[in-house]
Amino acid sequence: MNGAESLIATLAAAGVDTCFANPGTSEMHLVAALDKQSQIRSILCLFEGAATAAADGYARMSGKPGCTLLHLGPGIANGLANLHNARRARSSIVNLIGQHAFSHLTRDTPLRSDIEAIARPYSDWLRTSKSALEAGKDSADAVLAACTPPGHIASLIVPANVAWESGGEPGAVPKSLPAPLPKREKIENAARVLRSNLPAALLLSGNTLQGKGLESAGRISSATGAKLFVPYPFSRLERGVGRPNVQRIPYAPQQAKEFLKNIRHLILVGAIEPLAYFASPTRSATLIPSECEIHELASPNEDCAGALDAIEIELDLKKTSHRPTSETGRASIPTGSISLEGLAATIAATLQERTIVVDESMTAGRGIMAAATNAPPHDWLANTGGSIGIAMPLAVGAAAACRHCPVLCLSADGSGMYTLQALWTMARESLRITTVIFANRSYEVLKREFASLGIGAPGQAARNLFEIDRPELDWVALAKGMGVPSVRIHSLEELAKALMHGYASQGPSLIEVVLAPNS
Amino acid sequence: MNGAESLIATLAAAGVDTCFANPGTSEMHLVAALDKQSQIRSILCLFEGAATAAADGYARMSGKPGCTLLHLGPGIANGLANLHNARRARSSIVNLIGQHAFSHLTRDTPLRSDIEAIARPYSDWLRTSKSALEAGKDSADAVLAACTPPGHIASLIVPANVAWESGGEPGAVPKSLPAPLPKREKIENAARVLRSNLPAALLLSGNTLQGKGLESAGRISSATGAKLFVPYPFSRLERGVGRPNVQRIPYAPQQAKEFLKNIRHLILVGAIEPLAYFASPTRSATLIPSECEIHELASPNEDCAGALDAIEIELDLKKTSHRPTSETGRASIPTGSISLEGLAATIAATLQERTIVVDESMTAGRGIMAAATNAPPHDWLANTGGSIGIAMPLAVGAAAACRHCPVLCLSADGSGMYTLQALWTMARESLRITTVIFANRSYEVLKREFASLGIGAPGQAARNLFEIDRPELDWVALAKGMGVPSVRIHSLEELAKALMHGYASQGPSLIEVVLAPNS
Repeated sequence: MNGAESLIATLAAAGVDTCFANPGTSEMHLVAALDKQSQIRSILCLFEGAATAAADGYARMSGKPGCTLLHLGPGIANGLANLHNARRARSSIVNLIGQHAFSHLTRDTPLRSDIEAIARPYSDWLRTSKSALEAGKDSADAVLAACTPPGHIASLIVPANVAWESGGEPGAVPKSLPAPLPKREKIENAARVLRSNLPAALLLSGNTLQGKGLESAGRISSATGAKLFVPYPFSRLERGVGRPNVQRIPYAPQQAKEFLKNIRHLILVGAIEPLAYFASPTRSATLIPSECEIHELASPNEDCAGALDAIEIELDLKKTSHRPTSETGRASIPTGSISLEGLAATIAATLQERTIVVDESMTAGRGIMAAATNAPPHDWLANTGGSIGIAMPLAVGAAAACRHCPVLCLSADGSGMYTLQALWTMARESLRITTVIFANRSYEVLKREFASLGIGAPGQAARNLFEIDRPELDWVALAKGMGVPSVRIHSLEELAKALMHGYASQGPSLIEVVLAPNS
Repeated sequence: MNGAESLIATLAAAGVDTCFANPGTSEMHLVAALDKQSQIRSILCLFEGAATAAADGYARMSGKPGCTLLHLGPGIANGLANLHNARRARSSIVNLIGQHAFSHLTRDTPLRSDIEAIARPYSDWLRTSKSALEAGKDSADAVLAACTPPGHIASLIVPANVAWESGGEPGAVPKSLPAPLPKREKIENAARVLRSNLPAALLLSGNTLQGKGLESAGRISSATGAKLFVPYPFSRLERGVGRPNVQRIPYAPQQAKEFLKNIRHLILVGAIEPLAYFASPTRSATLIPSECEIHELASPNEDCAGALDAIEIELDLKKTSHRPTSETGRASIPTGSISLEGLAATIAATLQERTIVVDESMTAGRGIMAAATNAPPHDWLANTGGSIGIAMPLAVGAAAACRHCPVLCLSADGSGMYTLQALWTMARESLRITTVIFANRSYEVLKREFASLGIGAPGQAARNLFEIDRPELDWVALAKGMGVPSVRIHSLEELAKALMHGYASQGPSLIEVVLAPNS
């Protein structure tokens, strides 16, 4: 057994079952090992930023570690931006990164680079495997690091000679320790606040956005009147009819302040203080009112769902049951010409049960999530790190993890262009992804930011950097070019029809919605 | 004058006239400064890896520094892979990288990252500007660092408050010192070798691949019989009829060894020892025969053209003139069905004078350069670092630098997919680029590498990672999707017609050549 074989066998034994790969020459022994390992499905991505985002989406939806195979320094470099997002999502990811053989690293060849330095900024755990004998243990350690709650990015660099030399032994993967409960004082303090009847909100994150944690949050909210909030960037939220209504803090600082203005106690449950994404010369990054006290119930590294469970016991709520959002029946499907409100209503009215919504719709889609609050139960995945260009590959990973669920991928046109290669993998893998492109043909968010500078309207040079309408991107053609059936819609009824067609399909499709600029 | 304005004014005064940009919110004051600065043209790229490669192409062809504007950590991260290539090309590039305001960096916001750590592995010079007062001098220092021979990557991180605060002053850009001549002993040693009549070759790089340096090399070769070689990875080579014939060392190690087997003295002129790109369990990375001595005439940091000039004086060659390659008249344009030889011959027979050829044709295009040896004078640009995905954006930069020259961009399909966003910028800027996609629908180089492992044929899982034919990429549609006129050709005469049409056009076009697998 060579090093590569021991490494891949270890991953398989640890439950890694999917590898998003874009290998090169130095990774051929790893490819050969994957070729023999039937428990791991290798999924080809045509760009590494698609592979890392896919691994993120896979981890978010499967509860298992996402895995990538990347080619040397440039491979991990291309994957970094979406690792930034994955790290902010606290996703569990194991990156296998090829490296030259040790003998080759002593010589000045074109692809020599300091891969540890490149990977370090976005890796929580980082190691270069030193020998075939250690490769199995190294990969076991990588999985353990990735899976240690709440989830981490583990990057294992595999020199070619480590992969090809014999003497490999599979490593044993110990079960990761569960996250610890917060200290008693934090639980008692939060319970005291919740009993106070002052305007309070739980700011939820991590495992309180799904399953038992979310149910606890719902019961606490019903019993105490505390609101349930989620930060604008979040990893995965279960929502829809019958589930607690968790409201998202808006992106725009002024709207976020307005949203938060009445809260006097903000209880952080695995979340951190909400802040403006960007600094401004004229306003503070702080979003909560000055009268608001922040209380940490659980840090991101603590057992957040367990903390809510402890709160329930403290408040003696166990026997009360969460009052589900009232089932009001589906809204009727709107018709007529395209507007942002109409798009949101159409998407909400057609959403299928168990759909995974991947949302990077940016300025055009800001009303969709609220509109879908009472749609059938579904998951919502957001961009966690603000690095634009995640939606389509994140959808690839989510769909690969949940092959029986439809995936709705909402992408702005500008952000979609960063990782459009993901469309090809959707087709290759026959993934059930319906991608909606909101084509306002501009970086609308930048227009708004420029306008807020107070220096007047942008000149032609600045507009050239904000407008992507010359030439117009033709997403129907781009999708066709990568094997994804596509359509441009001109009315809400056409959108509804295309969405229903997409949900019913066993493969991917793309819907282009052309919007007026400034929408 | 705010910091951003002083910074941009300094760049303009230093001769920076083009900025390949993909800005975000934190760069809005830099955008506003560019908006007022008519001497710098901002060119929008829809992905940062396209921006850095375009800056590389611009620097290679203009002799001026290429410039990028990138958004925070993810922006520079996405640009790194082609900065790896640019650094290997020793191109002069100034990266302007946004950063949060200092006050914002103290808080844990989604886009916070250690940008210095991300940029450092591929930056020769790196600085975070500390104040508006210093921003002008910082950008002057960045230009000086970038332009110090032979060319460097300079990354200047610009916090938002540095950009928006007042008190900026333009910096003065000192002229960079010329590269020093090599020591006398190195020149005398090389002259002695060249007089010896033993089989010798000059391995050329840097400024000996163009202009006076190349002319010197040609005269030395004619007078001494020394061959002229260029490493497989090179930045820019002037060639074609009337110019010295510089032969490229092949990529494949076995072919490279065969090519070099008779050489007994290899004189490095700004080049480093040629080596195999990758290690192998069964062969050494060394390509030159054991009997061959290596002599360094000039290091990459020394004045290579000056060193050849000194050799000419030493050999008393000044009055002899280089014997140009005989002008044999153009070969006739081939016709008939598509073959690799036919493609190479067609491209060679139709090449226009002053064409800039950007070559990342990979396995399918390995015969083209040799076929075009006696085509009209032209430039050839190669991938210098082995990070795949450079051709189309490198062509963008070259075409933006030389708007009157036709550019021929030769790209494999697999490599083209990494940075296909460059097609949009070709259309936006009406760049005279004719892109030829060699669609063999596989990572053919990986198939060959796998076969060389001696472990038999790849199984289905491995083939899934090498073959990109399911679904087939439709490059005609992809180009159309980004506003580039496109055609699929089915014969050599169709190719010739499409090439001539492309050369005559004032904008971009794309030609897809579908090849049988294994070609």
